[in-house]
Amino acid sequence: MTQGTKDIEALIDLLSRLPGLGPRSARRAVLHLIKKRSLHLIPLAEALTRVGATARECLNCGNIGTTDICDICTSDKRANGQICVVEDVADLWAMERSQQFKGRYHVLGGTLSALDAVGPDELRIPRLIDRIAGENVSEVILALGATIDGQTTAHYIADQLPGVTVTSLAQGVPVGGELDYLDDGTITAALKARRSL
Amino acid sequence: MTQGTKDIEALIDLLSRLPGLGPRSARRAVLHLIKKRSLHLIPLAEALTRVGATARECLNCGNIGTTDICDICTSDKRANGQICVVEDVADLWAMERSQQFKGRYHVLGGTLSALDAVGPDELRIPRLIDRIAGENVSEVILALGATIDGQTTAHYIADQLPGVTVTSLAQGVPVGGELDYLDDGTITAALKARRSL
Repeated sequence: MTQGTKDIEALIDLLSRLPGLGPRSARRAVLHLIKKRSLHLIPLAEALTRVGATARECLNCGNIGTTDICDICTSDKRANGQICVVEDVADLWAMERSQQFKGRYHVLGGTLSALDAVGPDELRIPRLIDRIAGENVSEVILALGATIDGQTTAHYIADQLPGVTVTSLAQGVPVGGELDYLDDGTITAALKARRSL
Repeated sequence: MTQGTKDIEALIDLLSRLPGLGPRSARRAVLHLIKKRSLHLIPLAEALTRVGATARECLNCGNIGTTDICDICTSDKRANGQICVVEDVADLWAMERSQQFKGRYHVLGGTLSALDAVGPDELRIPRLIDRIAGENVSEVILALGATIDGQTTAHYIADQLPGVTVTSLAQGVPVGGELDYLDDGTITAALKARRSL
């Protein structure tokens, strides 16, 4: 096996370790990339190098950007007194795609978990408490997963923030959802939180 | 949106266009890569750059390597008079993983297809005919897919190679396969090709 074949094997191995890809799809991806060298492979290598050189976590909120303090934290337009607490940057991106929330974020970096031995200090909770005082925050919106760990974390955070309005995303029937396909817990939550029309 | 955010968006877009990945898994992959910068992102960028700089198609057989003529075509050990014809490099890799075939390969680059207007000249068929004469070939093993296009291509190639033994992979029950889950065509083929024990 020559060095070049080893390079291809190494590339397949690295791609196969990405979440969502296995060995078979990594091999397909590498063949595709080699066929589309100038259109896809070279731009991908360059984009990875650029992101690798510049991407970092915002020291304030944990969002990913290219500066010590991210775009959202530095923007005055986003200083509306609301902080939306999310588990992960992927959740922050999901919130931003909905284009409804105009405040700032706080990325916890996970949820409290007794099983995985994740306590408040492993998450970005102390920093959140500091921000409440420093940033003139009027409302903390908890946008955490509707899982046991997510809800435990939500209750813990609410307890740590006396004197601030703490709200949480509504639970109910997803838009476009059919009742027949929903689990009992969602139907129960939607029924309890029913609204008059 | 700063340049850095644009770089991350561009990386997500490039990854999401790989076969087997969509926008959602591309976002997860990018977050994973940024978190594992030195362990995963930088090595991946370097591997892509290396492969982009060196990978090319073998002028003889169509395999992917880093030299004009690939390792298999230059190896004397593989000159046993057998050529295994496959559709794609992925199929060549699959054959090599089984470690049973000791001859050389010929990668067609697809199959004949009336619908997609792929004729013999779009594939590497003329080159195969040249190789039969030049490389002292005694047997051509057709390892093409058991699809209509694959079998059409197999019959076409067999017609083009009078005077050479042309064989084809056996069709039958896959190892570990249960009859109950097999389609009728496979059972029919396996029954027709039954062997005495």
